[in-house]
Amino acid sequence: MPVISLLTDFGNFDEYVGVMKGVILSINPDARIVDLNHWIDPQDIIQAAYLIKSSYSYFPKNTIHVVVVDPGVGTQRRIVVLKIEDHFFVAPDNGVLSLLWQNTKIESAVNVNNSRYFLPLVSNTFHGRDIIAPVAAWISKKVPLKSLGSQLEFSHLKSIEMPFAKISPQNLIKGTVISVDRFGNLLTNIEAKTIFQLCRQNTDKVPVVRLGNSCVKGLSLTYQSVPEKSGLMIIGSRNCLEVAVNRGNASRIFNVGKKDSIVVTLENG
Amino acid sequence: MPVISLLTDFGNFDEYVGVMKGVILSINPDARIVDLNHWIDPQDIIQAAYLIKSSYSYFPKNTIHVVVVDPGVGTQRRIVVLKIEDHFFVAPDNGVLSLLWQNTKIESAVNVNNSRYFLPLVSNTFHGRDIIAPVAAWISKKVPLKSLGSQLEFSHLKSIEMPFAKISPQNLIKGTVISVDRFGNLLTNIEAKTIFQLCRQNTDKVPVVRLGNSCVKGLSLTYQSVPEKSGLMIIGSRNCLEVAVNRGNASRIFNVGKKDSIVVTLENG
Amino acid sequence: MPVISLLTDFGNFDEYVGVMKGVILSINPDARIVDLNHWIDPQDIIQAAYLIKSSYSYFPKNTIHVVVVDPGVGTQRRIVVLKIEDHFFVAPDNGVLSLLWQNTKIESAVNVNNSRYFLPLVSNTFHGRDIIAPVAAWISKKVPLKSLGSQLEFSHLKSIEMPFAKISPQNLIKGTVISVDRFGNLLTNIEAKTIFQLCRQNTDKVPVVRLGNSCVKGLSLTYQSVPEKSGLMIIGSRNCLEVAVNRGNASRIFNVGKKDSIVVTLENG
Repeated sequence: MPVISLLTDFGNFDEYVGVMKGVILSINPDARIVDLNHWIDPQDIIQAAYLIKSSYSYFPKNTIHVVVVDPGVGTQRRIVVLKIEDHFFVAPDNGVLSLLWQNTKIESAVNVNNSRYFLPLVSNTFHGRDIIAPVAAWISKKVPLKSLGSQLEFSHLKSIEMPFAKISPQNLIKGTVISVDRFGNLLTNIEAKTIFQLCRQNTDKVPVVRLGNSCVKGLSLTYQSVPEKSGLMIIGSRNCLEVAVNRGNASRIFNVGKKDSIVVTLENG
Repeated sequence: MPVISLLTDFGNFDEYVGVMKGVILSINPDARIVDLNHWIDPQDIIQAAYLIKSSYSYFPKNTIHVVVVDPGVGTQRRIVVLKIEDHFFVAPDNGVLSLLWQNTKIESAVNVNNSRYFLPLVSNTFHGRDIIAPVAAWISKKVPLKSLGSQLEFSHLKSIEMPFAKISPQNLIKGTVISVDRFGNLLTNIEAKTIFQLCRQNTDKVPVVRLGNSCVKGLSLTYQSVPEKSGLMIIGSRNCLEVAVNRGNASRIFNVGKKDSIVVTLENG
Repeated sequence: MPVISLLTDFGNFDEYVGVMKGVILSINPDARIVDLNHWIDPQDIIQAAYLIKSSYSYFPKNTIHVVVVDPGVGTQRRIVVLKIEDHFFVAPDNGVLSLLWQNTKIESAVNVNNSRYFLPLVSNTFHGRDIIAPVAAWISKKVPLKSLGSQLEFSHLKSIEMPFAKISPQNLIKGTVISVDRFGNLLTNIEAKTIFQLCRQNTDKVPVVRLGNSCVKGLSLTYQSVPEKSGLMIIGSRNCLEVAVNRGNASRIFNVGKKDSIVVTLENG
């Protein structure tokens, strides 16, 4: 049974997600629908871009990932289907998929414009229901991508402004908090490999992050490697740098939130 | 595989919804269970009535819609099964289904009182688990409705007090905010057709809504048809009038919430 | 199709639950995954212990219950699989399963340490994804428990500190609020049978609970057995004592919350 994952900014307080599932099952009763996440901050394309990037590979090959974070709904922005590493992605072409092809080849990109695969009535307010969900359901029924619309030049796809952080000439990494999770952990856009690269270049020093008057030094292996209520740096489940507090809420304790900067420097250990 | 949709006021913070799913799968392992919504405000029958009315038709024929918004649990209120337009509905008979038969014929109505289809032990606090979920599961196994209880006169079914708004003799529409969605959009009980009827009668004028000192004029086709942070009227995904703010939260900006009145008048454009 | 239930403290705001589902379906595409609950307060093992105890029996036999409330993730705490009354449980060995065997025989207990059934890469921050979800998926594919690791002495399993309340020598029951549900109802660890035992010993008296200046007297059969906004005691859906308010929020009205004491005494009716 084909899997369809859903990633939206709809939350769970309204019927929007449930109705999309009804639409999918009306077209393909065999689809397995999985909620990846619905609590992207309203219209936060960057947050969604990082989430789908770090999550999709845990799903079976041929999963169809539906992403509806769509501030431009009803305007002329494109809806696209991409095939990347044997996964399918259906989303508005607003950059939300753009981290997926940083190091990976796009196999196929289609501009979804064949209304035969939409609901008969298409509203101006809810393309998730009227276009994206039905298109995903049709893909799960093996409709070939080329039937869904016209081929698209990969270079025409939109990208987000905030890709993964890099090492700067000053030998530091300036990253950003992409999400604060339920536990108050600060999820950054600094990949593990970038931290390790920085450290390898300066093996006598340790990475340090300063947050207000606080300073977190060195990478921990577990949340419990530091005393309770102490801050720590760890490679989190997204394989990026995470700033956390053992049995505490880092966001509250350090007063740091989404979109704040996180600067990793090197200091003597 | 038969689909069972769930609409409740249980929220997601407790085990109530999960346990209902366990009960359903214990009776029918093949049931496909879809969360329509669980965040109806506690005991808000009107909010649930509008939600199920605008959502059910997006599900496959023969879906069994379970509605548990049930302030009278444990008292003598009836539990009913209705069949309407090839969909099934199981709910307390408290008006929550009453918008469904405004323009549609009820095919069948049953007073659920055959305890053979309940859990062996029926509590006084959780009929969703002990009666409604198992009855829905048995329907999904093709138990005939007449086995579930006695036939019911359609005229004996309860209705809610707040049906869709109509045009008043003063040539205006006085509606109500039924829900505020995650984005702060104000979802009203004013159907698109009622707005269009009002406008057709006065083609030189445009519809206007006043909210405190603000005034929203004319229907927009998309959220982005007005400048950012401006208010707009739009036919929303429920096919009813919605008051929104482009990239903003209308409820907060206009200080308008659930149960507040929305009056649509006509003015020169 | 085998059922896998999920109970975690991950909430729904992040991708953690969705990714676990992707992992499960990657291993067993036929698994039926049910969210039992994801809103256990962060790291509250006691709350989770009571929830799984009162919920699991509503699921089909052979359901695999995944419990991830795991403050010790990444440390040397064990992950265990238990078989109890034809249900399977996969969880960290931190006491979260310990109410399950109070009155029931454990059929099998395994220390999960065969990494063949883990994801190839195991992080230090997310064993729910890397170990527990894949192990549950393999169990659903009928991998024998003994393949997953070494047999475990039942007496070595950890227990929580707060088992169900008992009658004290002073002829009262001192219990605790384990959860406050969405409606503000106070869910205690005082079992129905304990209340009934207390009452049987003193048939001329009625149970009483004092909350600040308020006093709730006698067991109600339904929430509506008392006037609106009045407090009541009732045997709730967990088959334990619940303190509620008819159409009101008991937690707010009585200013009582999780971990507060609830003392049931007997007084003249």
